[in-house]
Amino acid sequence: MTTPIETDVVIIGAGPVGLFAVFELGLYDLKCHLIDILDRPGGQCAELYPEKPIYDIPAWPTITGQELTDKLLEQIEPFKPEFHFNRMVSGFSKLDDGRFEVVTDENEILVCKAVVIAAGGGSFQPKRPPVPGIEEYEGSSVFYSVRRIEDFRDEDLLIVGGGDSALDWTLNLQPVAKSVTLVHRRPEFRAAPDSVNKMFALNEKDELDFQVGQVKELKGSNGKLEGAVIKGPDGDVEIACTRLLPFFGLTMKLGPIADWGLNLHENLIEVDTEKFETNIPGVFAIGDINWYPGKLKLILSGFHEAALMTQAVKRIVSPDEKVVFQYTTSSTKLQKKLGVS
Amino acid sequence: MTTPIETDVVIIGAGPVGLFAVFELGLYDLKCHLIDILDRPGGQCAELYPEKPIYDIPAWPTITGQELTDKLLEQIEPFKPEFHFNRMVSGFSKLDDGRFEVVTDENEILVCKAVVIAAGGGSFQPKRPPVPGIEEYEGSSVFYSVRRIEDFRDEDLLIVGGGDSALDWTLNLQPVAKSVTLVHRRPEFRAAPDSVNKMFALNEKDELDFQVGQVKELKGSNGKLEGAVIKGPDGDVEIACTRLLPFFGLTMKLGPIADWGLNLHENLIEVDTEKFETNIPGVFAIGDINWYPGKLKLILSGFHEAALMTQAVKRIVSPDEKVVFQYTTSSTKLQKKLGVS
Repeated sequence: MTTPIETDVVIIGAGPVGLFAVFELGLYDLKCHLIDILDRPGGQCAELYPEKPIYDIPAWPTITGQELTDKLLEQIEPFKPEFHFNRMVSGFSKLDDGRFEVVTDENEILVCKAVVIAAGGGSFQPKRPPVPGIEEYEGSSVFYSVRRIEDFRDEDLLIVGGGDSALDWTLNLQPVAKSVTLVHRRPEFRAAPDSVNKMFALNEKDELDFQVGQVKELKGSNGKLEGAVIKGPDGDVEIACTRLLPFFGLTMKLGPIADWGLNLHENLIEVDTEKFETNIPGVFAIGDINWYPGKLKLILSGFHEAALMTQAVKRIVSPDEKVVFQYTTSSTKLQKKLGVS
Repeated sequence: MTTPIETDVVIIGAGPVGLFAVFELGLYDLKCHLIDILDRPGGQCAELYPEKPIYDIPAWPTITGQELTDKLLEQIEPFKPEFHFNRMVSGFSKLDDGRFEVVTDENEILVCKAVVIAAGGGSFQPKRPPVPGIEEYEGSSVFYSVRRIEDFRDEDLLIVGGGDSALDWTLNLQPVAKSVTLVHRRPEFRAAPDSVNKMFALNEKDELDFQVGQVKELKGSNGKLEGAVIKGPDGDVEIACTRLLPFFGLTMKLGPIADWGLNLHENLIEVDTEKFETNIPGVFAIGDINWYPGKLKLILSGFHEAALMTQAVKRIVSPDEKVVFQYTTSSTKLQKKLGVS
């Protein structure tokens, strides 16, 4: 464990709504740390459709997910938010002094006066293939991503999937692995043709083995994988393998937040429409992850929710200070904070 | 009276929030007519601070009121809204078939299925100076604006005020009027120095009369002004005049909407936060003119309110159609409406 970081607000999620929350909170001198499972800001916008135009951001007849992210980063630049990327929140508790302790899966501890959940559709998590008992092998023999290539050296790999991730890792791990078997349910791939051609060439030279089929059963014990049964067009085949890498795409999960004791409405966090506070005082939810009557999952709604949430957070952080609502157009005090006056 | 215009929605107010409402309603095929007291779109933004930067429009680190208006006009262009400028709503009633009739002060009749009030701070109205009985002369001898210069030919004018409007009209009306007296409470003006110099030059040549003071009393009867008592530094002076033009700036008033029977909260229209509907079903209020717990008078909140209001209006206009919520990023149907697909 590292020394706790103290801050005013921890924002979970660095998508457009989390980023704009930094702006609204910043206008009231509230310092923010943001935690995101991705490796950069922008959330779904930057991850799923960086190049795709969005048409319903007010006053932007058209803007891509990446441009929107870049503009928001520029807008919050004066407030110097601190980002914790590639992190998932693993712990959450209320301290005796009324503050919150938020712990990441890299064991950073953040102590704050308010928590803002702006986690969009939740955290991106790999889809688990429907193989009985696969959970037992996860983390020891089954991996949904490759953090270090060296971890797979001299192993017998079974890679499953037909997209770019499956093909790219087949080609990248083949030189270091003892053997590679690629399994996909049909001989056609949704991947770059060049990668597909390279894979078939290695298959021709017997430097890897491509099989059409689906993983039906895993063989092994105590989390140690020894083989797998592949159901193919000509019946079942058993192959030897010590590592399984399924690449079935990503799905969105609420993740550990689901265990915080928050009131949920169909997997969304219930909030009021005055402060966008959850049933846990001091914990707020804004953007696609919240629910209230009339809710629409629109980025522009998250912006509004960030503004109203800020008033309530300011009252928590500075209970004795009178919260004065001011306009950026006319307040030289706000303009000074923005570095324009 | 003209032939009634039939449309889906009448929006009162063509400021940024009224304009963005056209976009949201347009995505659901709802046609809009907008009525505004000003002579162009943009509301306060374009009228009061066209050149002033705004810093809190999401994803716009800085944008002027005029730029914001221009961007919104570009964004709603595919939906071809119809504007009625220089108009005030003078009549409002519910028809037997459930629709609404909205009448303007130019006697246009608009028949629609839903009314959206996006009138911001209300309508701009001239400030009335604190002179006893001034109401009796309004419209006959007292005017707060000049529509036609000819109406003031050969009259004895009393112009009051120290800003640009007072100075400009003093200089513009002086050639046609029989006499002009300008009254301001001090010899310094908040007007263009060139206009002030010109006025003092005419005063030197006795072509007009400038007096320091305040209007204390009006003389006349049956709406016919004959003179005014000016309280000056050396006591009261009576001057002859047939027309009084006070230029004390503009103020915002709710205007005739105040008489519709809407529930008000300190001069703001009460709405729910699910549909932003008023106590009159089918009448909605969005932007600075509405009130609900947590309300902030922010443009970005009006954008959110416009989106949620649209869902409810769509259900009123097409009660038998299932309202399907779609994203501009992924729906080719919406993209076709926007003219980009």
